[in-house]
Amino acid sequence: MDKSKISHHISEQFNKDLEDVRNKVLAMGGLVEQQLEQAIEALLSCNVELAEQVISQDRQIDALETAIDLECTQILALRQPAAFDLRLLLAVIKIIHELERIGDKAKRIADMAIKLDCVVNNMPRHEMDHMIDLVKSMLDHALDAFARMTVEDVPEITGRVEKVDREYDNIVRLLITHMMEDPRNITRSLDILTTVRALERIGDHSRYICEHLVFMIKGENVRHLTQEELVEKIKKPL
Amino acid sequence: MDKSKISHHISEQFNKDLEDVRNKVLAMGGLVEQQLEQAIEALLSCNVELAEQVISQDRQIDALETAIDLECTQILALRQPAAFDLRLLLAVIKIIHELERIGDKAKRIADMAIKLDCVVNNMPRHEMDHMIDLVKSMLDHALDAFARMTVEDVPEITGRVEKVDREYDNIVRLLITHMMEDPRNITRSLDILTTVRALERIGDHSRYICEHLVFMIKGENVRHLTQEELVEKIKKPL
Repeated sequence: MDKSKISHHISEQFNKDLEDVRNKVLAMGGLVEQQLEQAIEALLSCNVELAEQVISQDRQIDALETAIDLECTQILALRQPAAFDLRLLLAVIKIIHELERIGDKAKRIADMAIKLDCVVNNMPRHEMDHMIDLVKSMLDHALDAFARMTVEDVPEITGRVEKVDREYDNIVRLLITHMMEDPRNITRSLDILTTVRALERIGDHSRYICEHLVFMIKGENVRHLTQEELVEKIKKPL
Repeated sequence: MDKSKISHHISEQFNKDLEDVRNKVLAMGGLVEQQLEQAIEALLSCNVELAEQVISQDRQIDALETAIDLECTQILALRQPAAFDLRLLLAVIKIIHELERIGDKAKRIADMAIKLDCVVNNMPRHEMDHMIDLVKSMLDHALDAFARMTVEDVPEITGRVEKVDREYDNIVRLLITHMMEDPRNITRSLDILTTVRALERIGDHSRYICEHLVFMIKGENVRHLTQEELVEKIKKPL
């Protein structure tokens, strides 16, 4: 075999390795989305069995993070990639960490589904439904942008953080009123607050996934930027 | 210049680069410790000016994270390190992220110092003092272990997470009692809860720093292990 064939063979294998990593991230993302979906369903439909299932499946997400992280480290050591390939691997290591954090929050919501034991009627349902829709769409669209390797939807996704924060503040105010009306509501209201805070954090982690994606595609670190600064950076041609 | 001299020169420069990264992490760690120290002082001594200083200095920590992350990425691209050097750079990227998160929590404590506006007497001071000591010692010893590049103190540091959690639960119980006694305490108690939760999270991030250090030194991923499993892994010879 001549040298060019070997190098072609190596780069083909390398591309397969990167493709494999990308597919595993998407599979992990799918599992995390399912965990979140089921945790919320368990909470709202008062399904303790489903909540227990979410809790026991969290280890699977942890194991996926460990496995993909190891795979990225091994590719870095063996292939010593540069430019886009290097950024892809570094971004993946960070993205799977965000996914693991989101999985952890889904588990916390499932914990609260069990602890709250069907107090759905005491929750500010209208506001919570709105927040759930926002947060689920942020995660869904962030994973979709990663799958399509494009940043064009990022400003729209990260822009939703502000709406999530506003809804969070609304809910806190409602819960405080609820606690003041009757001190017997305090413990449960704190558990609802824990649930709502988990949702709010999922929105943040979805934003971080978008930021890592921008670094991967455009080579620009956009963490710690305001929404306006982020939009400017994304508009800039490569 | 013959080839061996060039390669010696390159590896010398490479070692300098790695040393430089390590020093920057330690400088960032020092700044984060100072931020935490001052945020707590602002809270307990009711010093709004100091709290404002902590809040404005948070941007400096964000900038340090961005700069060190970029430096690590550039070294990875240029030097294509393997084995320990690769692990050092990957661990540093993760450690500075934990430090940035701790800085963020210090800022949140400073925010609450201003919002609470001297309600020190309403706080469960004894329990909070204990928690503050625990958390500060965790961060301090984690940074010290990183500076000395040794994992021998890790089990002792990570073992303190359980004590922090116990103290956190104690404080939540005290705050609930306080809220039940008088509903006018509710809003302030929630702000104290935010402060205490920030402290609890700083303990977690200090544990994560230790985990990244174990990966760096021993090449073993110890995230998601129980304290017992972690201790076993550390005991294992390299």
